[in-house]
Amino acid sequence: MKGCLVATTNPLVAPASPVAASPRRPLAIAAVRLDPASRLGAWQLRNAAATIPHCIGQLEEAGNLDNFRRVIGESEAEWRGFWFADSDVYKTIEAVAWEIARTGTTDFDSWLADVIGLVARVQETDGYVMTWIQGVHPEKRFAELDWTHEMYVLGHMVQAAVALARAGRTDLLDLAVRFVDLVDATFGPGADKVGYCGHPELETALVELYRHTGERRHLDLARHQVDHRGSGLLKVGSLGARYFQDHAPVRESQSAVGHAVRQLYLNAGVTDLVLEEGDESLLVAMRAQWDSAHHRKMYITGAFGSRHRDEAFGDDYELPSDRAYAETCATIADLHWNWRMYLAEGGARYAETNERELHNALAASLDETGTRFFYSNPLQLRPDRYSEESAPRERTPWYACACCPPNIARVFAQLSGYVASVDGEALALHLYTACEIDLPEALGGGTVAVRTSYPDDGRVEVAGPAGLGLALRIPTWAAGATLDGAPAAPDADGYARVSLGEGPLVLDLPMAPRWTRANHRVDAVRGCVALERGPQVYCVEQVDLPDGIRLDDVVVDPSTPPRGSYGGLEIAVTPRQEVGPLYGPRSAVPTGETVTVRAVPFHTWGNRASGAMRVWLPTI
Amino acid sequence: MKGCLVATTNPLVAPASPVAASPRRPLAIAAVRLDPASRLGAWQLRNAAATIPHCIGQLEEAGNLDNFRRVIGESEAEWRGFWFADSDVYKTIEAVAWEIARTGTTDFDSWLADVIGLVARVQETDGYVMTWIQGVHPEKRFAELDWTHEMYVLGHMVQAAVALARAGRTDLLDLAVRFVDLVDATFGPGADKVGYCGHPELETALVELYRHTGERRHLDLARHQVDHRGSGLLKVGSLGARYFQDHAPVRESQSAVGHAVRQLYLNAGVTDLVLEEGDESLLVAMRAQWDSAHHRKMYITGAFGSRHRDEAFGDDYELPSDRAYAETCATIADLHWNWRMYLAEGGARYAETNERELHNALAASLDETGTRFFYSNPLQLRPDRYSEESAPRERTPWYACACCPPNIARVFAQLSGYVASVDGEALALHLYTACEIDLPEALGGGTVAVRTSYPDDGRVEVAGPAGLGLALRIPTWAAGATLDGAPAAPDADGYARVSLGEGPLVLDLPMAPRWTRANHRVDAVRGCVALERGPQVYCVEQVDLPDGIRLDDVVVDPSTPPRGSYGGLEIAVTPRQEVGPLYGPRSAVPTGETVTVRAVPFHTWGNRASGAMRVWLPTI
Repeated sequence: MKGCLVATTNPLVAPASPVAASPRRPLAIAAVRLDPASRLGAWQLRNAAATIPHCIGQLEEAGNLDNFRRVIGESEAEWRGFWFADSDVYKTIEAVAWEIARTGTTDFDSWLADVIGLVARVQETDGYVMTWIQGVHPEKRFAELDWTHEMYVLGHMVQAAVALARAGRTDLLDLAVRFVDLVDATFGPGADKVGYCGHPELETALVELYRHTGERRHLDLARHQVDHRGSGLLKVGSLGARYFQDHAPVRESQSAVGHAVRQLYLNAGVTDLVLEEGDESLLVAMRAQWDSAHHRKMYITGAFGSRHRDEAFGDDYELPSDRAYAETCATIADLHWNWRMYLAEGGARYAETNERELHNALAASLDETGTRFFYSNPLQLRPDRYSEESAPRERTPWYACACCPPNIARVFAQLSGYVASVDGEALALHLYTACEIDLPEALGGGTVAVRTSYPDDGRVEVAGPAGLGLALRIPTWAAGATLDGAPAAPDADGYARVSLGEGPLVLDLPMAPRWTRANHRVDAVRGCVALERGPQVYCVEQVDLPDGIRLDDVVVDPSTPPRGSYGGLEIAVTPRQEVGPLYGPRSAVPTGETVTVRAVPFHTWGNRASGAMRVWLPTI
Repeated sequence: MKGCLVATTNPLVAPASPVAASPRRPLAIAAVRLDPASRLGAWQLRNAAATIPHCIGQLEEAGNLDNFRRVIGESEAEWRGFWFADSDVYKTIEAVAWEIARTGTTDFDSWLADVIGLVARVQETDGYVMTWIQGVHPEKRFAELDWTHEMYVLGHMVQAAVALARAGRTDLLDLAVRFVDLVDATFGPGADKVGYCGHPELETALVELYRHTGERRHLDLARHQVDHRGSGLLKVGSLGARYFQDHAPVRESQSAVGHAVRQLYLNAGVTDLVLEEGDESLLVAMRAQWDSAHHRKMYITGAFGSRHRDEAFGDDYELPSDRAYAETCATIADLHWNWRMYLAEGGARYAETNERELHNALAASLDETGTRFFYSNPLQLRPDRYSEESAPRERTPWYACACCPPNIARVFAQLSGYVASVDGEALALHLYTACEIDLPEALGGGTVAVRTSYPDDGRVEVAGPAGLGLALRIPTWAAGATLDGAPAAPDADGYARVSLGEGPLVLDLPMAPRWTRANHRVDAVRGCVALERGPQVYCVEQVDLPDGIRLDDVVVDPSTPPRGSYGGLEIAVTPRQEVGPLYGPRSAVPTGETVTVRAVPFHTWGNRASGAMRVWLPTI
């Protein structure tokens, strides 16, 4: 099972090594066609029509492409952006690549030819290409791995190249492999020194490269970097070795710590190794990491990283709503990791987490037009909060550190890939959305149609070849779910396993709104409840409160069930009428008149007015 | 009222300008002799015996003095520390100066001669002296005021010089005035450009210099800097103009924002100007600033700054216990500012705040030996929190950025100065502590003796010349306070005004422990109570819990009154016995057996074992 197979089927993360022999296999991106009227489908279309072109425009506006041109004298511009700005170019190419894989579009061909041609001209004869080093600090080449992000940039180059190759275009792959070969010769298993990047990313990219090329040396280089990480090679700054996960060997690192995006990209790469090599010691570490990140450090919106200072995971249960850093890229990295963990060992928790992330933190990271973005996704906005560069009060078209927007573009382009998979003899459905799915030969071919307006509604109809095995994910919040009217009984993995009959199968997921509480150790939201319905987290915005009532002063009564549908739930709130001193023998109690206000899906917040917002609502 | 008066009486902040004509005047440092057995007295003695010598040793160890020597070829050492490390030298000199003023000690004379001689040799002919610029980056001289801290360093040089001059030694003053003159010529009222420092500090120092020299140009330079601050002259980095209070003119800045130490030093300087010039528009701004800082942004321990990223004040009511940055220097800066606000307009709230700060945040910033320090003073330590450079889990002997330890040394050396003042015809007592106070001529001379073991006990005896007017601060928590057995009735300013009789007057302050709640807008501690007794905030440490009960899992019942005395209060806690999921329909409730545990004064935490700690205790 070498390159040729995956090159023609372009799935997300198809394990290539015989050792893996997993019953869980991804489908080709093009095999899942999202209904344009569904939420996921509409998001994917908006991505193609608005977000990707916006990113392409911004790469020119913000100077990312000039950064390449100036190296070879094709531009007089000053260097602009962060030193790893090349990665934004590669992420945008990757987004385009998945669009081509998905739809066969030729709209981007000339842009791709221009940009890849530019990269080729900038690449040095030994394969090196990173414009900040080449054009600004040549003396730092491979000299400050803790900060330079050279291998991080290469990682995104490789991911873009592999995605493009799977879509049938290999010119970038040739360039990427040359740079990989240089890194391999410099820091690989045969080199006289070890080196890995301050920002993990190359690891997962190398395994994907191996899946495409079938070249063992690409997998070996990934393993070499993972095996050595944590040996303290990186120069430690004021943020400590945890910041870039160099404080302990991967196999001994049980907690998700440091820069959240780095930890989660690293975990995706490590899990890729597990998929290819079945390394049990790595899988054990990944399970501990997963529990740490998801059972003690995840925001209810599916976001990660509670600290601004070092963009880091907090301590266990340190999950403040107001200072949630909750970087969009961390959620994206986790989505990638979850998909790999599912492939490695199955279990509905991975897709349930992805669904939470998609419908909340990720969906909130851009506006309705798909051209304005949040880098940071807090769960509370205080009325007087002032904007910070990476955490503005309102979504903005681009960022000085623009990692998030093109990352959003590539993940929405990939979206169809996370909907379903082959699971042994069955088709597994992970994300419910209206779509058509072409079945692979292994499942007998044919097409499955999913009809639903989920998550607006909980009814999901699945129609397809009679006798087809289905594994339908039953969300943990969906107690009382039914299949054709009978109780849906998920197996230990969280999937209900059935066979399709002649007519459509009907899965009914109860969508009553529910009040959710956090663990008592989450000090930040003690005495509060969050409102959820299906996979959707809600919030209340100041704009929906009557004049004279301030969001920070209201109390909800969770014994009153909320009413309404997807777009808005009605809840009763009672205002406090005094503010009171900062500290004293008692706190103010709600004495105002109870009013009904609307709670809106979290991902829609900030689209109407700039004002206070809360996910967690006080009950006392 | 020029220099000669203050030079012989060495008070803290004696307004010099006739316009001020305040009825409130500080006493000379040496006029208040703290009882060595009292808490404040013991702290001051420990400071002289341990902290100051420790700082002197560290200045050598950490390279601060070598940084001077290397400029003039007296050392081969590399530059060490942060670029503003000279300020640590000046703060230590200032601590020594107040010790000399207080006790007349000659123990430090040869050290002073050495260090001041060194400074003199390093000073350039035009008056400039800042070793990082001189020895490492001469091209940055006055070129990057946003970051270089040159005037900040000068400010500490001036403060040290003035304190030393008040103690009778003027060699450093001569050097400082030369540097001030250079700044005046470069950026002063007569210069062709305006300049102020990214880190406020020089402003308050210049007014103190004016008080000593009587030279109007020193006051004018301070006003010039305050008048222009906020005009956006400083180059804005990723932390924004608020970071160094350059986002708005001082008179328009109503909220305490940005780097907390900078804002509070600035406010001290602005209030110094108010004291000298009676500028009502500045006083109005300072009142708004004071309310912002103390009514919406102060931790219950008297600490400030909830954010690690930019060492900044948070938004209103953003006061997380676990991520409290709560820099020691911010509390010290606020103590200075409060004293000036008291002198400007009276009111017991200023001294009440200072008492809260002294007995809690400040006292907690060092250990029992006076040689290990906290830079950051959180109100909660989670069991898994890992140390950060400026926020270690345990107190450390020094810091890479060592601003706090010598700042602690100078403020404990000044301590006697905050105990009492002249208030019109009366002696005002602000901090209760056993001491003797020499009355100034204006109050008829003689000595007042204060006998008390406060805050261990609430009984305070005051004896002195019959007929002496007293203004005794009645803390807001001391409902039921009595004076010679009769209800103590404070005036609108919060002071009870009485005349001394022949025998001692007895003030009795009720010291029953009390449960305190935070304002409902402080999301971080909703559903929690803090335990206070007198001015003392308490905390619970893991080390005082029975085996098997984790601090994060206990609940207190505030309907049960705590019992005990100063050193330990007994409270009942009930453990939760399940941890439960991160999010779900309910939180775990306490079902374990209720046990009695000890709460200890917050300032003693971390002295016995490194473990979890909480000030705010959950009630739900």
